[in-house]
Amino acid sequence: MALKMANTKSGVKNQTALLAAGHWLILSVAINVGLLLKLIHDGNLRIDWYGLQNVQDNGGRRSSYAAERKPDGQIQNEYINLDHGDPTMYQSYWKQMGDRTDVVISGWQSVSYFSDTKTVCWFLEPGFANAVTRLHKLVGNAETGNRHIVVGTGSTQLFQAVLYALCPYDAPEPMSIVSAAPFYSSYPLITDCLKSGLYKWSGEVDDFNKEAPYIELVTSPNNPDGSIRGAVFNGSGQILVHDVAYYWPQYTPISSRADHDIMLFTLSKSTGHAGMRLGWALVKDEAIAKKMVKFIEISSIGVSKDSQVRAAKILDVISDSYEDSKTSNESKRFFDYAQEEMAKRWSQLREVVNKGQAFSLPILPAGECNFSHHTFATQPAFAWLKCEHVDDCESFLKTHKILTRGGVHFGSTKKYVRASLIGREEDYNEFIRRLSLINSAESP
Amino acid sequence: MALKMANTKSGVKNQTALLAAGHWLILSVAINVGLLLKLIHDGNLRIDWYGLQNVQDNGGRRSSYAAERKPDGQIQNEYINLDHGDPTMYQSYWKQMGDRTDVVISGWQSVSYFSDTKTVCWFLEPGFANAVTRLHKLVGNAETGNRHIVVGTGSTQLFQAVLYALCPYDAPEPMSIVSAAPFYSSYPLITDCLKSGLYKWSGEVDDFNKEAPYIELVTSPNNPDGSIRGAVFNGSGQILVHDVAYYWPQYTPISSRADHDIMLFTLSKSTGHAGMRLGWALVKDEAIAKKMVKFIEISSIGVSKDSQVRAAKILDVISDSYEDSKTSNESKRFFDYAQEEMAKRWSQLREVVNKGQAFSLPILPAGECNFSHHTFATQPAFAWLKCEHVDDCESFLKTHKILTRGGVHFGSTKKYVRASLIGREEDYNEFIRRLSLINSAESP
Repeated sequence: MALKMANTKSGVKNQTALLAAGHWLILSVAINVGLLLKLIHDGNLRIDWYGLQNVQDNGGRRSSYAAERKPDGQIQNEYINLDHGDPTMYQSYWKQMGDRTDVVISGWQSVSYFSDTKTVCWFLEPGFANAVTRLHKLVGNAETGNRHIVVGTGSTQLFQAVLYALCPYDAPEPMSIVSAAPFYSSYPLITDCLKSGLYKWSGEVDDFNKEAPYIELVTSPNNPDGSIRGAVFNGSGQILVHDVAYYWPQYTPISSRADHDIMLFTLSKSTGHAGMRLGWALVKDEAIAKKMVKFIEISSIGVSKDSQVRAAKILDVISDSYEDSKTSNESKRFFDYAQEEMAKRWSQLREVVNKGQAFSLPILPAGECNFSHHTFATQPAFAWLKCEHVDDCESFLKTHKILTRGGVHFGSTKKYVRASLIGREEDYNEFIRRLSLINSAESP
Repeated sequence: MALKMANTKSGVKNQTALLAAGHWLILSVAINVGLLLKLIHDGNLRIDWYGLQNVQDNGGRRSSYAAERKPDGQIQNEYINLDHGDPTMYQSYWKQMGDRTDVVISGWQSVSYFSDTKTVCWFLEPGFANAVTRLHKLVGNAETGNRHIVVGTGSTQLFQAVLYALCPYDAPEPMSIVSAAPFYSSYPLITDCLKSGLYKWSGEVDDFNKEAPYIELVTSPNNPDGSIRGAVFNGSGQILVHDVAYYWPQYTPISSRADHDIMLFTLSKSTGHAGMRLGWALVKDEAIAKKMVKFIEISSIGVSKDSQVRAAKILDVISDSYEDSKTSNESKRFFDYAQEEMAKRWSQLREVVNKGQAFSLPILPAGECNFSHHTFATQPAFAWLKCEHVDDCESFLKTHKILTRGGVHFGSTKKYVRASLIGREEDYNEFIRRLSLINSAESP
């Protein structure tokens, strides 16, 4: 299984850092990904996708990710779980908003499967569609004109819907799905979990036929490293899918309206409502949008209307706060709060990392944000942390009771880990405190 | 693609009506299913899975399924869509309940991905789990002791989770998925939509290896024909999955607590809240439950918490009404209402069908219900209607502006259609009126 991703005829990709490491590193990474998929499918993987098993294995049945369950002061001896990007940072903001975002849903609602049969996406609630369009116009981060909105159970389901829509059912070979490393760790898992005959993960391996159609996933800002990206493979068969989950003004300056053919967004990383499981795609081509809708119809017969109704309310409250000066004076507006909070966290993180030689962080580009008119550098939801003196950064941090996701999951090396920066404040502060202690101990 | 389901070495199944028709009929049905999958994937299928395109093709952009959008009296010239099982019948009940089932959800809720990491299903809301267990105990339709509850985005997602959990990733051949015809039309679509290497639809074709592990789907009461079923293939490799979506007292007498290894339920057909997209599985084996959870983690990172919160409220209101005599005197209780409404509809349907010779319906078994203590015959959510004098029943009914789903979608013949009986009252009454007119015209 692993070998299908590492064809012996494979060439070496000639425009990334992998060039120097050459063929064997690519083979090794491919085998890693393959084994990872196998282990995850078999349920034997020590570290679970969202880090739960990890916590349970190490702390008995006590789970440390849920900081709210711990009395103050007890956090210091517990595991901090920064493995998954659980956006609990945002919860305190929404609590401050009181009842302004409350939604009342009656028992007779959400009875029908259907929302609006006059649109391509018949399970899309019109109120949610309007709120999405309105917010994009306000923020200026994506073009919504002449596009179809497809709602999904998170952008995770939309990613699968895109693969289904773009890969012909009767092609002789599965289509190659590629993304430059480091890539979002879920891409290979989702792509290969059912051993589909429609598509296969080809990752960083460069031996796929670039003349034949292939799909390149472009995540910008990138998960895990926050880089601002365009397509890199540039074959004539290229079909691009843009994962723009993090293209919001709390994470990066909004430089222009994204105007790609297929763009994926999610509520988890925009407003922080991961538990709603709601994402949306902006799709230019009607035929592609229809096939995506077909996939969601087959795989879940639509998407929770309750979550769509709630999301519409929350997005509208955000838009209201910027458009209505009366509301905006009452409390801090959402993106202002989120941008400041991310700036504060990144400032603390860079400070502690720069104080010693144990770790390093990527340098990220700065620019003026068309939305906030502030100039700042990209401040991603994750830290892509490199251990300078240790080969296995994930294991090393684990000895300090910090759970992160190791670089191999992202097609990179063990020198790197991805650590979530959008968790609860007490966990974040403890993370900084521990990094500081490690840096003091490791540095001369 | 179709041919993989119709191996030339295939034998002939010897326990169903297909026996007489023999090998060529099986081949024909298999080819139909194959072509259907192909057409649906390519988006060219005239009749969409949920009948929307159908309505749009025939009525221009006017859609007739949404009876609530039509002023009274205008229904007579419009298409009635009984193709999909949209449970809008239940909406009027929930409207009568006023604010008793209202739920208020605040903006700070549904932020985390996680619900309860101490249970196998870490995205299962404890309140929903309790409400499910409580209702099953009240109704007596399923054993909940020593079982794991896995929540899914409808039972549709749970079905896929089961396939993922039961089919080894490294098996040399995809596992055969079978179900006796007539079977739920979505089973082959879901199973084969991604051309998985883990499993493949083998349907009614009897040439799969019964010594090797295979999965038999047992739907009881059955969709589409309402029959009460057990396993039929009985090979030594048998693994059973029980789809008990319709094992509720409005559809069939509850004769005992279902006690199978894997049981799938859905809110759509129990309380009628299809738009919530919520189902649950009761699973005995912890390892299987864990793999199902893993699939839902990979494919949608959990299930809408908003829908779980709402569903918990609705299920609890139903349980309250039976357990609290004060509440129960105020208004009709849910299952009493639903059982009576289904009885009324079936009585009208049987009466109109029996008045002529154009149609026939299956005879369904009667028994005493342990829950309601009434004796009645199974009264399914769908009519499995046979045209006695017409070969293509679906096309024939369509000329009378009645949209149904033809028998070939269920592995049966064109003589049959499935018609939903759980739509809005005005649509149902118009359906009965049109059947009556057809019967008068067709009968001597």
